[in-house]
Amino acid sequence: MTSETTKPLIETLTVIGLGLIGSSVARAAKKHGLAGTIKGGDLSDAVCKKALEIGFVDEATADLGAAVAGADVVLLAVPIGAFRSVGEAIAASLKPGAILTDVGSVKLAVFTQLEPLLPKGVHLIPGHPVAGTEFSGPEAGFAELFENRWCILTPKSGGEGKAVTLLAEFWTRLGSKVEFMDAEHHDLVLAITSHVPHLIAYNIVGTASDLEEVTQSEVIKYSAGGFRDFTRIAASDPTMWRDVFLNNKEAVLEMLGRFVEDLTALQRAIRWGDGDALFNHFTRTRAIRKGIIEAGQETNEPDFGRRDGKK
Amino acid sequence: MTSETTKPLIETLTVIGLGLIGSSVARAAKKHGLAGTIKGGDLSDAVCKKALEIGFVDEATADLGAAVAGADVVLLAVPIGAFRSVGEAIAASLKPGAILTDVGSVKLAVFTQLEPLLPKGVHLIPGHPVAGTEFSGPEAGFAELFENRWCILTPKSGGEGKAVTLLAEFWTRLGSKVEFMDAEHHDLVLAITSHVPHLIAYNIVGTASDLEEVTQSEVIKYSAGGFRDFTRIAASDPTMWRDVFLNNKEAVLEMLGRFVEDLTALQRAIRWGDGDALFNHFTRTRAIRKGIIEAGQETNEPDFGRRDGKK
Repeated sequence: MTSETTKPLIETLTVIGLGLIGSSVARAAKKHGLAGTIKGGDLSDAVCKKALEIGFVDEATADLGAAVAGADVVLLAVPIGAFRSVGEAIAASLKPGAILTDVGSVKLAVFTQLEPLLPKGVHLIPGHPVAGTEFSGPEAGFAELFENRWCILTPKSGGEGKAVTLLAEFWTRLGSKVEFMDAEHHDLVLAITSHVPHLIAYNIVGTASDLEEVTQSEVIKYSAGGFRDFTRIAASDPTMWRDVFLNNKEAVLEMLGRFVEDLTALQRAIRWGDGDALFNHFTRTRAIRKGIIEAGQETNEPDFGRRDGKK
Repeated sequence: MTSETTKPLIETLTVIGLGLIGSSVARAAKKHGLAGTIKGGDLSDAVCKKALEIGFVDEATADLGAAVAGADVVLLAVPIGAFRSVGEAIAASLKPGAILTDVGSVKLAVFTQLEPLLPKGVHLIPGHPVAGTEFSGPEAGFAELFENRWCILTPKSGGEGKAVTLLAEFWTRLGSKVEFMDAEHHDLVLAITSHVPHLIAYNIVGTASDLEEVTQSEVIKYSAGGFRDFTRIAASDPTMWRDVFLNNKEAVLEMLGRFVEDLTALQRAIRWGDGDALFNHFTRTRAIRKGIIEAGQETNEPDFGRRDGKK
């Protein structure tokens, strides 16, 4: 907490991209009084209008340069594939000393895309709140999204001390726990905890849709046997996820290679009836879930606490 | 509903195996007054004691022959790998005209395992309520587990008319929607909607545990990026799932082959930077989730309605 509680942490905060994550950041910053003014930028006029209507920004414009003019902190919440064009649109308008950050799921690429474009004196500090839902758009956001979630910051070592401290304070006050990591390591960690899980979820939903022997209606009816769990993350935003895979190729291919190797071993155990190999594998996977629940990163209720269709 | 509401649907119901599913059937049958007497059989004395203590059975014994003596309906809720030994233990005590059913996730194997053992006049009608949680044991069950879920019955064609009608009525009154299917087709449908999803969930959790570059603590901390969804079904009962894979080998290998083929195509798209292929794949998978929600088989709330760690 700052000593002067009347002065907000950030004078002017600009959020570019007012979808699920961007609108949640704006909502949470407003709720906790972290910014004097919150400006929104989004190329869609309809989204700007909706943002003003809901009221999570004080101003909103499709002119991204105007949106960032005078801002102390600029947060990009657009798919990574749009970083270069957004960077080009805002670079000249960024205030010297401004902090430029983001919320993307890959971090090395942020430097590659943005660093060449930025004027001197702008602090580029990539960030990644590990939070989200399968919904998209300005109406899907909510202020509590980041509570008790990790936010990973990946500053380059040296030189950004004060800016990093401010950004860490910002995320802490949004309810997050902040961790620092090297961008390359971040991309490797998230490849296994997020990117490959999304890929295999998208994949099995695709495989199930394509079957001839089993109808789509049967897949839907009997999805409660496990399949439906995968459909949630396979309903995530296609543009965002295309960009994640295109921008974290090496780490994803490495982790995917291991996944397939391990799957081949299980496949072989099934083919040869090796019950012990299956049992041993299925036993050791229980511990990780226990750890995730104990770490407060998952609900302890059976079936995620789902209340679908129950009377 | 029967016309005489004072007479229960089943005079004596015996449930063999008093874990999550068996205890839920007993609880639901009691709640809806579907049986005059509910007897429990379980090889574990501790489980029998717990079942009597909770009160979802009227009697409980580790002597499985005694448990089924005089029963009109006997429901097996043990892993499929135990069917032969349970069948041997109960066959001689089954009453002529009794219905023998089960709740297992594979259905062809029920005939293979039990048919050779049964005395004449016993009606073998395999069943599969597509419902469950990742928890196990008599304390994990609850009466509402089957509400609005499908229960698939796979009788052999011809000859079992009356017994099938009674069993369908039983599941309907537990809150389920009943469907009939050929056992072989059931095993194919469930291979894609349940068995392969479990296998790949178990597999990715294993892959993540084995990494050297990413610590287990990192996997746990950043699991909210998608990974944690998989840990739920990878926490399911290992014995049950070993037996499923050993007893539905052909269908699982067939579906797994398709899954890997499709995954290879996505992997290739990532390697060659084919964004359109990724985007198109990720777009068409959204429709299936919509269908599942519309069919009442999934909650419409974001993130399964999880309330983990939220203030």
